[in-house]
Amino acid sequence: MKKKIKKINAAILIIGNEILSGRTQDKNVAFISNWLNTKCGISVNEVRIIPDVEKVIVKNIQILSKKFNYVFTTGGIGPTHDDITAKSISKAFKVKYEYHKEAYAILEKYYGKKKFNDGRKKMAKMPMGSKLIYNPSSAAPGFITKNIISLPGVPSILNSMIENCKKYLIKGIKIHSNTISLYTVESNISKQLGLIQKKYKKFVDIGSYPFFRLGKIGVAIVTRSTSLKKLKSVNIELIKLIKKKKIVILKI
Amino acid sequence: MKKKIKKINAAILIIGNEILSGRTQDKNVAFISNWLNTKCGISVNEVRIIPDVEKVIVKNIQILSKKFNYVFTTGGIGPTHDDITAKSISKAFKVKYEYHKEAYAILEKYYGKKKFNDGRKKMAKMPMGSKLIYNPSSAAPGFITKNIISLPGVPSILNSMIENCKKYLIKGIKIHSNTISLYTVESNISKQLGLIQKKYKKFVDIGSYPFFRLGKIGVAIVTRSTSLKKLKSVNIELIKLIKKKKIVILKI
Repeated sequence: MKKKIKKINAAILIIGNEILSGRTQDKNVAFISNWLNTKCGISVNEVRIIPDVEKVIVKNIQILSKKFNYVFTTGGIGPTHDDITAKSISKAFKVKYEYHKEAYAILEKYYGKKKFNDGRKKMAKMPMGSKLIYNPSSAAPGFITKNIISLPGVPSILNSMIENCKKYLIKGIKIHSNTISLYTVESNISKQLGLIQKKYKKFVDIGSYPFFRLGKIGVAIVTRSTSLKKLKSVNIELIKLIKKKKIVILKI
Repeated sequence: MKKKIKKINAAILIIGNEILSGRTQDKNVAFISNWLNTKCGISVNEVRIIPDVEKVIVKNIQILSKKFNYVFTTGGIGPTHDDITAKSISKAFKVKYEYHKEAYAILEKYYGKKKFNDGRKKMAKMPMGSKLIYNPSSAAPGFITKNIISLPGVPSILNSMIENCKKYLIKGIKIHSNTISLYTVESNISKQLGLIQKKYKKFVDIGSYPFFRLGKIGVAIVTRSTSLKKLKSVNIELIKLIKKKKIVILKI
């Protein structure tokens, strides 16, 4: 399955009222995106956060699974009534929602026959044909259904499972990146930065991000490219610009 | 403009490669959503995070502006080449992208005529007919265009501007919420919780969220409703269930 091909992309679908309402700060987007970028050469091109509502989940799964190579879902695979991710994915693809034999066996062994109640059994129900993503923290597995990878919402559990997703993913081409942090304001360099971006339009993405550190205003210039050579050329031009403007470099 | 009507909703559109790539942890979703909930009675029903790509921004603005009462955008309103939110909103609504006179005057005064360069002037360009959202931190205003409210991406600046959005918003009905934190596992209460949710389906949303604290596993049960009376009834039933199961309450 693994072969090096260009530009593989993904979307992340965060399922959960607790994130939408602002009660809980999401941490999974940054973690998954970073991991996909650095370990798999996969770019996340869209994220959506949606409520625990079946028809909303179904529609988003259908749209995103067509639009992107992979869709990572987080949340909604636990034992309670508001955990409806697996059922909704079954509906989205019109496949049966049924017990996965291996998942059932894993959970039964983990909890013991006596404590394997209905709520826990629910965590073994998945769209027909799903493959398991093993969970070294708390047993209940994630699963992959077509191009949808379903993971839990609790960050520490998700983090412990992420490496187990790797075998299902086709690797993309590595994206190199470089950051230069400066003590300056964006508008001091915005014109020249725009010209450099224009020159390297097809090869390098240049992002400019203001920040505050120890009471000073700064700008981080982030360059990203699949070509290490083009990335270096851009960074040489950036350093020239910075020297010409006599800007203090904080970090390179 | 202000009148009490039921269920006003909103979407948040986070514009920025730095959030998508995982380089920067988003903090604006939780902040805006919390503020809308508690101060305006407005629920956030969807969040999208998208790249700094014009056609993607245009399409998302068109879709979300039809689907929700309000759309809050964050990011892309600074002076650099990758700041294309205002231009994209103009294209989405097919209106002119032009200098806003008052914004121009504010910025010119703030920077002084000599230092008011092209990058800074760009921050005064907006979709025709936009109204300003004043910025007490760094002068460059946000703006509202039809039902789209555009704010900056830097959390501290956004936070300082949020109260200035209020006058443009129709208030919704207040959503009350209550949280009970327990030392238990979800599957211990999932069945009964499901039955209570079923009984109050139309009136109260019950969410169940596992957590880890000091090495112990817990569950936060969050109830939300526009009716304080129904919320109280549900919570009485929850307390009964908790006592029956002899579960330790951590916080109520």
